[in-house]
Formats: sequence, structure tokens, C-alpha cells
Amino acid sequence: MSRYNLDWKVGYSSDPSVRPERFVPASVPGAVQLDWARAEGWPHYWQDSSIERYRWMEDMYWIYEAELSFEDLGENKRLFFVSRGIDYRFLVRVDGKTVYGQEGMFTPVEIDLTEDADDGSLLQVIVFPIPVFGDGKGRSEARASVKPAVSYGWDFHPRLVPSGIWRETYLEIRSDRHIRELSFNYTIDEDLSRVLLDLCVELNQACSGLLEWNLLHPSGEVVDGQSISLGSDAIVDGTCEVHDPDLWWPREYGDQPLYLLHVSLHDEAGRLIDERKQNIGFRRSRLVMNEGAWDEPQSMPLTRNAPPMTLELNGRRIFVKGSNWVAPDVFPGVSGEDAYRPLIEKAVGAHLNLLRCWGGSAVNKPSFYDLCDQMGIMVWQDFPLACNDYVESPEYLDTLDQESLSIIKQLKPHPSVVIWCGGNELFNKWSGMTDQSKAIRMLNRNCFTHDPDTPFLPTTPIMGVGHGGYLFRDVDGVECFELFRRARRSAYVEFGVPGPASVDRLSSLMEESELFPPRESGVWKLRHGFGAWEGDPESWLCVSTIEYYFGRSESIEELVEWAQLLQSEGYKALFEEARRQKPYCSMAINWCFNEPWPAVANNSIIAWPCDPKPSYRAVKQSCRPTLASARVKKFSWSQGEMFEAELWMLNDALHSIKGDRIEAYLQLDDEETFVLGWYFDSLEADENRMGPVLRFKIPEMLSQSFRLVLRVEARPDWNSEYTFCYR
Amino acid sequence: MSRYNLDWKVGYSSDPSVRPERFVPASVPGAVQLDWARAEGWPHYWQDSSIERYRWMEDMYWIYEAELSFEDLGENKRLFFVSRGIDYRFLVRVDGKTVYGQEGMFTPVEIDLTEDADDGSLLQVIVFPIPVFGDGKGRSEARASVKPAVSYGWDFHPRLVPSGIWRETYLEIRSDRHIRELSFNYTIDEDLSRVLLDLCVELNQACSGLLEWNLLHPSGEVVDGQSISLGSDAIVDGTCEVHDPDLWWPREYGDQPLYLLHVSLHDEAGRLIDERKQNIGFRRSRLVMNEGAWDEPQSMPLTRNAPPMTLELNGRRIFVKGSNWVAPDVFPGVSGEDAYRPLIEKAVGAHLNLLRCWGGSAVNKPSFYDLCDQMGIMVWQDFPLACNDYVESPEYLDTLDQESLSIIKQLKPHPSVVIWCGGNELFNKWSGMTDQSKAIRMLNRNCFTHDPDTPFLPTTPIMGVGHGGYLFRDVDGVECFELFRRARRSAYVEFGVPGPASVDRLSSLMEESELFPPRESGVWKLRHGFGAWEGDPESWLCVSTIEYYFGRSESIEELVEWAQLLQSEGYKALFEEARRQKPYCSMAINWCFNEPWPAVANNSIIAWPCDPKPSYRAVKQSCRPTLASARVKKFSWSQGEMFEAELWMLNDALHSIKGDRIEAYLQLDDEETFVLGWYFDSLEADENRMGPVLRFKIPEMLSQSFRLVLRVEARPDWNSEYTFCYR
Repeated sequence: MSRYNLDWKVGYSSDPSVRPERFVPASVPGAVQLDWARAEGWPHYWQDSSIERYRWMEDMYWIYEAELSFEDLGENKRLFFVSRGIDYRFLVRVDGKTVYGQEGMFTPVEIDLTEDADDGSLLQVIVFPIPVFGDGKGRSEARASVKPAVSYGWDFHPRLVPSGIWRETYLEIRSDRHIRELSFNYTIDEDLSRVLLDLCVELNQACSGLLEWNLLHPSGEVVDGQSISLGSDAIVDGTCEVHDPDLWWPREYGDQPLYLLHVSLHDEAGRLIDERKQNIGFRRSRLVMNEGAWDEPQSMPLTRNAPPMTLELNGRRIFVKGSNWVAPDVFPGVSGEDAYRPLIEKAVGAHLNLLRCWGGSAVNKPSFYDLCDQMGIMVWQDFPLACNDYVESPEYLDTLDQESLSIIKQLKPHPSVVIWCGGNELFNKWSGMTDQSKAIRMLNRNCFTHDPDTPFLPTTPIMGVGHGGYLFRDVDGVECFELFRRARRSAYVEFGVPGPASVDRLSSLMEESELFPPRESGVWKLRHGFGAWEGDPESWLCVSTIEYYFGRSESIEELVEWAQLLQSEGYKALFEEARRQKPYCSMAINWCFNEPWPAVANNSIIAWPCDPKPSYRAVKQSCRPTLASARVKKFSWSQGEMFEAELWMLNDALHSIKGDRIEAYLQLDDEETFVLGWYFDSLEADENRMGPVLRFKIPEMLSQSFRLVLRVEARPDWNSEYTFCYR
Repeated sequence: MSRYNLDWKVGYSSDPSVRPERFVPASVPGAVQLDWARAEGWPHYWQDSSIERYRWMEDMYWIYEAELSFEDLGENKRLFFVSRGIDYRFLVRVDGKTVYGQEGMFTPVEIDLTEDADDGSLLQVIVFPIPVFGDGKGRSEARASVKPAVSYGWDFHPRLVPSGIWRETYLEIRSDRHIRELSFNYTIDEDLSRVLLDLCVELNQACSGLLEWNLLHPSGEVVDGQSISLGSDAIVDGTCEVHDPDLWWPREYGDQPLYLLHVSLHDEAGRLIDERKQNIGFRRSRLVMNEGAWDEPQSMPLTRNAPPMTLELNGRRIFVKGSNWVAPDVFPGVSGEDAYRPLIEKAVGAHLNLLRCWGGSAVNKPSFYDLCDQMGIMVWQDFPLACNDYVESPEYLDTLDQESLSIIKQLKPHPSVVIWCGGNELFNKWSGMTDQSKAIRMLNRNCFTHDPDTPFLPTTPIMGVGHGGYLFRDVDGVECFELFRRARRSAYVEFGVPGPASVDRLSSLMEESELFPPRESGVWKLRHGFGAWEGDPESWLCVSTIEYYFGRSESIEELVEWAQLLQSEGYKALFEEARRQKPYCSMAINWCFNEPWPAVANNSIIAWPCDPKPSYRAVKQSCRPTLASARVKKFSWSQGEMFEAELWMLNDALHSIKGDRIEAYLQLDDEETFVLGWYFDSLEADENRMGPVLRFKIPEMLSQSFRLVLRVEARPDWNSEYTFCYR
């Protein structure tokens, strides 16, 4: 089997039957917008303040062309055109003849061109104008397509809808006998002592010869395998058995062993014709009832109990510390391992164990899931539906059927993918879908049929789960501290506090004159600093919240410092409160982890492309397996008030920890005062412990802030500190 | 095609390979228990106070035998053994040779015996011991089978588990070319102006000849049809189109037109070989959001909105007034149209528009659904799962898959079946299943794949829906009046108030000496008068509740009268309160309608077999489309208290109603006092109206009860009356 890359160029036309007059070099995988912009010499779109200039491209047919060039196929060989993904609706033509058509960017294309193409033939991919539903503006335009809704504009994403070949695309010369597809399914005995692996090899045709498969332990040792003579069936089923399997664990819970399934096809003489290699990590994922959830409600007329949201991996309940992952680029075609790896390493560095791949964005490329498999980061995968009432037309449902099956097939082999979810916020008012919506019922069906052992959520939030808030202080003046203290949710799957990008980044995005003071116009508005979210007209810079606590800033540096402090302290309060609510609460997944282009302000803890904000370090502090923690009811304190902090030890480590002594200090102006000492007894694995409440009358201060510091005598790595506002 | 009934006999053996020594005549369809009891001369089980004597039968293999007797098949004919249902696990043998085996009572059996049987052959059906899971007692024994859980003992049902041939069973001689199956699916245009019917005819083999289909309007007129020459396919797809279809409506909303689909198979000479006739009623059923449900919740962290529970038929929202249907006999094999018809007529008579076929009982025979189609009674069909955590073994899931597909196939053609539901109370603590349970995900999948246009509920209650209470006054002293006043549920799918059978019936069930006073023993206990339900040790007679209001009764007549009064007034309060909560509330479905054997007391409004209790008349009053209604906070009043009643006009009629005047009277001892008059303006179709609150100080009385009477001047058919307790 050999592969040939093609030399692509691209042009546009308002009529698909009319060949463009001008072609420009095309980067594949990529997007037509990027190719055209490059040819035109426009600034990178992420620095461009004229995003509107891309708009006309949406209405065009974009025509990719490449001249085929390949050596004589020889005997028993066939020529395939393979694309892992073309966005969104397209035709494939060879020398003017249409050989294929498809709607949907997640379903790979494999076309046997042997009969249609010759050396020198012209291959064309005609990409249709982007799908637009109705005459709405914004996300509702995505209501009738399986296209990431975020591209139509979001509170952190410009209206900029990618188009074109976005995944690896090449010619492939294959033997006329080859493996078309390798799939597998496994079950693990209830006591985890044995894995039964069923594999299915689909050949392109029934043929004679030999099929061999071997399952290799990560050490390289063959665990099980078989070799069979082929006969009249093009589909061959086989099994492997693994006793005492080394299971795949999320990080901080164990290792990430990946077995290798090696399948090879041999001819009658034993010569290798084709082979496939597939990594497999064995794990059992379940959603089980949250502790206490069976005990409510109690009163007639009884309704149902809250659905299960506690993730159990390999029989162990795991408190999810996670973050919402969005596409790391407006154009998913340009993202790959280079973009994914440093970001996922950041997730590891912050002690996160799960990324929720949010349904507004495109499903990532395989390398994302490979990295998560290797690094022990669990994935909650939304299907590409978000905040819309998707239509029930047969056309949409057919496309969703095809696309969801492709997504399941591509992601199912990854042990890291532990939860399927129908999409984002679909059962809420602003979307309008319900349990009866056919799209959701179909996704349940497809997941159940093809990956029945991985949990499926119809959407998020479901009953008992919380999304929000997204502000440090909401429009009614309620602080995030207070919001979570009074909340009782089985899982917090989105919650956020906004923070600005660094001054350096801001400076790179706009003229000096625009930088300060920020105004609701120009780059500040385009890049989501003002009016980005309907929940607060000041989102996401939230200037008046900063002023409420710290007064008017005198420079961009001061403004950014205060705003980043709010984000940091807000995230600490939220993550730690969610952890304190364990075990009734089972997940803390903030909104959001990263961002697809440089926003001036956003709930993300990492600025584009991979630049941690101070809040990243705050999240990292709050997500350590073991830490001293303070529960404080509010952020801002005045002279004479009685400051209160409830001391806690938080622990979700695998092992018990020794008792120790926490000392609590207040740092007021330049003075540090010892306030309280607490000896805590040893804690079991995964046990939290509530401690005493310290009280201290706030004196007059010069500074606008003060700090609470918790020091653990023998374990300074468990120390924590919190900053509060004095006003 | 000709059918032959068989002359069956039955015997038992502890070893399926050993032929029983004794056979007794078998009534088919029926149950082995009934055959044996008849032969032994036992009393009817419904009068028998020794139900334990049936217990040993559960552990036996029951062997049915019949000698085949048929004329020479002749050329081109084949002999089939057909059974519409055998309960539960069984083998079929011909002359000692096993020709078929199955687990599951809802999947029909069709076996081609042509090669195996001759005139005079011995046909045997070997029914296995009943399925029992674990060593539990009661419903949990049903955890691993698709067998009605009610048979294992319930608060209104004895532990008595039917076994044997329960549906029509016969020999059939068919042409060697015949129609194996006719199925159809239809879609209705959004504006209801057109139906597209897809039909699929499966022949037993590809053959030449002609296939013709015609769709006939209820008037007999042919609406659409076609005739095609057969060729190489055994499966033939066709379509029919109906413009301006006459839609099927629930009663009081329109007519119940049934079209007829007639499919005929002809040989090359045009001679009729086989035919099928299928009634079809066209309707569109949806569950849509309850009014107001999108407006809650409002506060962060936001959870999902409550799921839709408002039934919309043909675009019209319909307030469901319904009742829970249980199998009308302990042995479903003996129930048929004769049992169903009078009961369904009672539902019609009480203005009910829906019966929920509860998942603890067996799915009914086809005549039940035919009658509902004809009489305009909608059906909510539970799958046969109830109050258990069904196992996830592959064996159970395979059986459930097969059985659910059979149930869907059998019921889907009925327009009356407007809701599928996974089963009863599965997501509650006492069951322990969740949204992640494979059984539920599979049912959702099967319904979506085969009947996607009918709503599916995973279970009931779902979020926002209420089940209970089941008492007039609960163990904490809360009256049902109060319970519903403070409740806010999207639908009340079960709620009940217990009441005893008539004195005549009670007398027929026990010795005179046992009759009064009732004690927790003997027939009173066996037949659910005491300790029947864990929610109240006194259920269902609830003697101390009766004594609480009316003191100790002096005779069985007095006791029954007071108890039936409580049931009647309780049901009025509950049904009318649910109606007042419209439109946020969309359903009032009481527990329960009928009962499977004579209970001494039960929440049913109809005593076995079809004997309406006084509460039936109360429900009938409260479910009239239009009525004057009083909202009163409690049942029992004392001298000097201020009696209050909020007046309402309730209207769910199709048409607006004229304004009128209600006069409210109190009947205290023998005196009637006018208290309040209320002129109400005209009401829109389906509009309720809240009126004034009347107040009246309770004087001293002699009687233990008093009445509130509402009279509507021009419409005495809207009058209502309520009885209260004076103490």
C-alpha cells in the first residue's frame, strides 16, 4: 500500500459548473478561507480586525483541483482517493465526471478511482456554499446541518464558517485484496479479571489466503491470537481473551497501558498483502448514582430520582476535575498534534482528569484522542449539536445518522472517551429540544447499537446537573462564591469566571490608542470584551465588576491585574466548593479551558494559542489531589466586619494521608497574623474533612486586598492561599 | 388458507423427558393452573382462599399434547403450527422430535410442520417451570425475565404465576406461496393535509404472480392502490397517498375513522392465493412542552427544563383524563374481548380519554386495542417492566429485544396507542434502574427504529411527573386534598384513594362470621384489606382512617359506606385539582381503573370483574368536559370553623361555553342554605375559570356529614356536589 499526496490549488465560482478563472495554492488539510487570505496577503485572521471581509466566501462554490500523477498501477492494484474529511457538502469529479457526493465533514471518503482515472487526470473537489438555515443570524443558521454551530458566531468565537478539505487527503494504491475495515468490541467481566475481545475484519472482497491477528501486551508479549484460512466470506469475526488485563486508568489513578491488535492479510503463499494496527486500552466506564441521590425526593407525589452522574472507571468512583475543551482554532483543519499536545499537557499540569469536548465545536482529529489515551486524560465527547432546535427533516436526520456513526466508529477505540453526550444545552429554553426529539433518540440508538458499554447522556445539563454561572458577580450582585455555596447539583459541567488576556497579547491585537480605557467598539468589541453574552451586557471584560471592587483603574496593566485576580479567586472558590460538595457532587468542569482565537477576555483559563492565564495556576492549586482549603462566603470585606473562613482538608488521592496541623494566617497590608491552628486526623483515600471556622475582625487597611494563607506543617505542597478585596 | 383448532390435554412432570402419567383436558388459550384446578374440582381461584395450593405448579414442566388431524395437504400446501403466545419458556415437539424452542410470551410462533408431521402425529408443547430470579420473594423474582412482575405478588394481586398457552393457537394450512407479513409506516404532513403510507409485504418466497393493494376510506371508497407483477423479490414495498385524510381522534375530540388496507396475492392466472386486511387510523401523536415549563428553572447553576408531558394529537393539545389499566384477570389467557369491552365502555362512560396499560401486567390481546381504536380511548403502553432492577445479562437483553420488537409490531398499527413507555417506576429507589440501564436504552432504540413517530418515555415518573399518593389520609395525617393543592407536577400519572368492594361482593368472598369487624387475617388479609402496601400498614381497607373521620362503624354496611364515601370524595378532589392546574398540568391518570381478582379493598374504581364502585360515579362527575367545581382545602370540619370553597368552572370541551350563574348551597342536616352566587362570563374552548371564594361558619350539626351543592342555572348537567365530614 502506498500513499501519494496531491498538489492542490483552489478557486471559487458562483456556479459549480463554471471553472474558476483564478486558482491559488491550497494547503491541505486546511480551509479555503486561509488559502485565499494567504494569496491575497491579508493578515492572519487572528490578528485581523476585518473579519467581515471573509463573509462573501460563504456563498461561493470552492473548487479544489489536483492533477493525478501515479505510476502504472501494475497487476492486482487499485487506486483510491481517500479523504478523512471534507467540510461540508461536496462533489468529487474526475475529468469532469462526478464520481461521488456527500454531505457531512466527519465521514471519510474512500473512492475507488481505478476505472475512472489515469495518470494526468484532473481531480476536482467541489465544495458547496456553507449550509445556512433560515434567515437568522448566528447559531440558528446551523439548525439543519451537522456543522459546528460555534462557527456561526458565539460569545468567544467570530462569525467565520470554515469550508474545504480539513483532514488528511491522499491517493492510495491498494492491493485488490485488502482490509477495508477493522472494528472491535470488548466486554470485561464484572470482577475485571478477564476481557473478551470480539474483532471484525471486513475485506474488500471474499478471497483466499490467510488472516492472522495477534493481541500484544504493552510489553510486546503476544497475549492471544489466531490465524485462519480465508474462504467465501469477506467479513471475518474473531476473538481474543485477556486474563488479568492491565486496565487503562485516568492519570493519578493508574497507568495507561495500550495493547496492540495487529491484523495481517496474507496471500496463499503466506506473503503479507495488507495489515492494520490498532491500539486498545481496556477500561470499564459507567455512570452510577451519586451518593445520596436515591434518598431524594421523599414526598408524594413522587417524581423520579436524579439520574446518575458519578463516573466510575474500572469499578472506582472518580471525582471529575475537568474543563471544557473548544476547538483550538477557528479553522479545525489547521489544528493537529502540534496544537493539541501542549494544551493537553497543560490539562495534565493542572491536575485535570477530564476534558469535555463541547458540542459547539468540531470533533477533534484522531491525534487529540491518541494523546488523551497516552496521557490519561478522560474525554466526554459531545456530538456536534449545540444550543439549537435542530430540524427533524429526513435530510438532516440522514446526515446526522451518517455523521454520528462515523464519529462513533472513529472515537470508540479510544479508552479515553468515557462519556458520549448528545450535545450542548439542548433541553433548555434557548435551544428547545426535548427527550422526544428524533435527533437525540437517534444518537442514543447509534451509541447503544455500536458502543453500548460507554455511558450516553442525551445532553447536558440533565436533571440535577448545573451549567453556569459565568460571571464573578452577576447582574443581581450575587457573587460566584455565594452561588455555589447555595447550589446543590449532582455535577457542575459548566461554570466560569471571565478574565482578560495578558497586556502583551492585548497590545498585539490593537493600536496603543485603543488599549485604554477599553470601549465597547473596535477590537474590544470584536474580540468579546463587551456585549459578548446576553447574560451580561458587559461580558466578558466586565469593567464595572472590576470597578465595583477596586475602583477605576488607571492603566491597562492595573485593569488586567485586578480582572485576572477576580478570575483566579473565583475559580478557586468554585472548584473547591464543588469538591467540598463531594460525594453528592461528582464533577467540576469549568467553562472553559482554551479558546479558538485571541479573545480580549473570556472564561478560558488558557489564552490562545496556549498561554495560561493566572487563573490557570489558581485552578492548578485547587485541583491538587490533596490540599488545605478555605470556605469563605464572599470576596469583599470592609473594616469592622467579622471575616470568617471554614477550614477544610480536601483529598481525592488514591491513598490515605497522615494527620497534620494547618495554620491559618491573614496577611493584612504588610503584616502576617496567625489566626487559627487545626490538627486534623488522618484522612482516608478520597475523603474530605471539614474543620473549624476561623473568625477575625477586619481592621482598617491601606491595601485594596488582603490574603488568607493556609500552611500545612509537614506538607507545604498542600498549602493554599486566597486573596480578598478590602473596600 | 384454513385453520384447525386442536384438542389439547395437559399434564405435568418434574422431568421434561418423562411423559406425565395423568393428563387433563386443556382449555386453549388459558393456563395450566386453570386446567388442573378444573380437573381437581377446586373452587374458582377468585373465590379460593387457599391460593397457596397452586404454588407447586410453578416448579413443574407442563406438557400439552394434541393429536394432529388434518386432511391430505394436497399440492402446493404447507402445514403450519401457529400460536400467538405461549407463556413463558417452551419447546415444541412433533412425535418426540424438538422442532422449536423459545423464551418469551409475547412473540408469536409460526412453525412449518410440513416435513415433520403427518395426520395422527403427536404435537407437544413443553412449558418450563416459571422463571424465578434469585431467592427473593415477590416482584424481584421477575428481574431476569420479560414476564409480568405483578404475578409474583403485588398490593392488589396474589402470588400466582400463570403458565401455558395464553393466546390463540391452531394449525393452519397455507399455500406454498403466501404473505408472511404485512407492515406499514406512515408520515403526515406538518399541516395534516396529506398522509404518505409506506407498506411492506413479505412473501414466504419470491414467486411470480400479482400483488395488489388498495387503501379504502371508511366509506368503502378506494383512496389509492396499485397492482404489480411479482418477480425475484420476496419483499415488496409499496406506497399509498391520502389527501385530506380523515384523522383518528380520541373520543370527545372527533371521530375514529379506520381506513382499510387490503393486500392480495394472486397467481399468474389472477386467482386469489392469499390476502391480508389491516385497519389503519391516521393520527399524529406528540409529547410537547407543558405550558410554562420553558420558564423554569431560572436560576444559576441552570439545570434542564422539565421534559414534555402534554399530549398533542393531530396538532391539538389534549388534557388527559385517564386511568391505569391492569390485567382484568390474574390469568391473561382467559381475558378477551368479552372481558375488555364492558370495561372499556365504562372508561368511555366516565369521560376518560386514555388508559395507561401498566407495565406490571401483561400486554393485552389485540381485541383490547381494536376496541380502543373503535371507541376513541387512547392507550399509553408500558413495556412489561415494573419496579425492578432488571438484570443486564445478554440472555435477558436478547429476550427483551425479541419481546419488545414483537410488542411494537403488534401494537404499532393501532392509532389508539399514542405513547410508549419503558415501564413502571424504574428510575425510583425501590427499582434502581437509571437512564444508563441497557434495557431502557434498548427499548428506546427499538421504538425509535420501528415506530419513530410515537413518543417514547423511558419510564414513569420522569422528571416533573408525579406518582402517588395512594391514601385518603397518609400516615403523617396529610389528606389527599392538601397533597395535591401543594403539588405542582407536569402530569399526575398515578394517584389513588382506596375503597372497599360492595357488601355483596365481600359477603361472597368470606364466611358471615369473618365479615365484621374486619381483621388482619384470613380473607381480609389475603385479598389486600390489611398490610397490602408498605406505605401504610393498614392498606387498603384503612380502618383507622375511617374511624378518624366517622368513629367506629357498627356494621359492615356502615363501614363500607363511609369508606366508599372517602374514596369518592378523594377522587373528586384529586381529579378536579389536577384539572385546575391545567395547562401546567397535562394529565390526571388515577391508580387504578380495574382489578385482576376480587379484592376486598383497592384503589380501583371498578371492582372485579366489572362492577363500578361509587367512586366510579365520582370520577365520572369530575371528568365531565364542563362542570362547576369547588376547591376545598380539607375534608373534615368542626363547629365554628370557617368553611371555604373556591368556585371554578372547569372546561376542556372542544367548544366555547356561554356564561351562566352558579349558585352554591350548603346542605347541613336537613336544611339547604344558599351561600353564594357567581355569574361567570363565557369560556373559551379548553378554558378554566377561577371564581370567588365562599365562606360559611360551620354551625353545630347532628349529622356526621354535610354537602356542598353547585347548581348552574341553565345547565343542570354541569352541577356538582361534594360531601364533607363534620366532626
